[in-house]
Amino acid sequence: MSKQVAVILSGCGVQDGSEIYETTLTLLRLDQLGIGYRCFAPDIDQHDVIDHRSGEARDDERRNVLVEAARLARGDIMPIDELESDEFDAVILPGGFGVAKNLSTFAEDGAEMVVQTGLQEALAGFYEDRKPIGLMCIAPVMVPRLLGPGIAVTIGHDPGVAGAISAMGGLHRSCGVEDIVVDFENRVVTTPAYMLATRIGEAATGIFKLVDRIDELMDL
Amino acid sequence: MSKQVAVILSGCGVQDGSEIYETTLTLLRLDQLGIGYRCFAPDIDQHDVIDHRSGEARDDERRNVLVEAARLARGDIMPIDELESDEFDAVILPGGFGVAKNLSTFAEDGAEMVVQTGLQEALAGFYEDRKPIGLMCIAPVMVPRLLGPGIAVTIGHDPGVAGAISAMGGLHRSCGVEDIVVDFENRVVTTPAYMLATRIGEAATGIFKLVDRIDELMDL
Repeated sequence: MSKQVAVILSGCGVQDGSEIYETTLTLLRLDQLGIGYRCFAPDIDQHDVIDHRSGEARDDERRNVLVEAARLARGDIMPIDELESDEFDAVILPGGFGVAKNLSTFAEDGAEMVVQTGLQEALAGFYEDRKPIGLMCIAPVMVPRLLGPGIAVTIGHDPGVAGAISAMGGLHRSCGVEDIVVDFENRVVTTPAYMLATRIGEAATGIFKLVDRIDELMDL
Repeated sequence: MSKQVAVILSGCGVQDGSEIYETTLTLLRLDQLGIGYRCFAPDIDQHDVIDHRSGEARDDERRNVLVEAARLARGDIMPIDELESDEFDAVILPGGFGVAKNLSTFAEDGAEMVVQTGLQEALAGFYEDRKPIGLMCIAPVMVPRLLGPGIAVTIGHDPGVAGAISAMGGLHRSCGVEDIVVDFENRVVTTPAYMLATRIGEAATGIFKLVDRIDELMDL
């Protein structure tokens, strides 16, 4: 029986959902390592819909996070409320602004943010059972709220986001795009991905390292 | 000056646009090889909008192919009418049902299909100048209409689609998911990708081979 990893999505598209390349590269590396996976997303309305060509909000449109995330999962996705941590060996969260708008209120509230309830409940079981947790891009900003204070993470070196992590009781470590930060005690692995990447190959290097480290931690 | 490849998209999502993994894997491999790329899509309404969770059509929704494809390109995309083949060394078309619904009428008309005018005009320059052309998944079904008869391609081994290719004057070759078919004379490279893939790693193997072969052909 192969290892199983839950992947939590927030829509489909960097501006209002999950970052597409980060998600695809995560799934690719899991599959290359022979690890099974299943995708989850909250069954809620998106915070907004962004025209990714113009960058403008489409105020007349409503889209559902789970339905749009299903594009990234080729239809094979479940509501996050049905995520049972005892069925999985680890969990990974790709980034994208959906993390800051659909999975949390970071985009609007900064260090005063709250995290989506279903996500909070889903992650608690993984953390309590000391199962590895991977987060990339902007997703590590949720760690102080999701898992608690004093956990080392990286979002690259953006001073505003790093400051918010500190303000919430987290520990931010600067990190290059092709590297990872590992908090061994808490079994949390993070990489900057498209917080810093200027090319997809750079993002792939960091994300592959993150998935490889999650794989190793599942054995420990 | 690095080689430059045009990548032509048809939306964002396997059921009504470009297949997301095929597109991402194509861009990843191009970048890993040091090849520059630019994405293009037609500025037209999608044929339909499919709820990728339920598989049902959303008859009340309209989406634009270029605007949705911009999600796959992180906003960096141009209308296909602005694609000048003399600025590029090769062109690649990922698959997805958008090929059969937005770039052509294959989904409705089978062997009687027509190809989107902007795509037809864009591809003509590449073919006339003997620049390599890569197509994956269902996209090779357009080759007889786009480029002419007698060109060897693969869509895996689906008898219905293979028969339509033959009916239009094309040559179909059966092919495994991790392999490619190369028509050296016409400089056309094809791979089945998600016509056959059951895992993303399988699709990656075939797609990486296709991009590697396109890279070699650009030197010949």
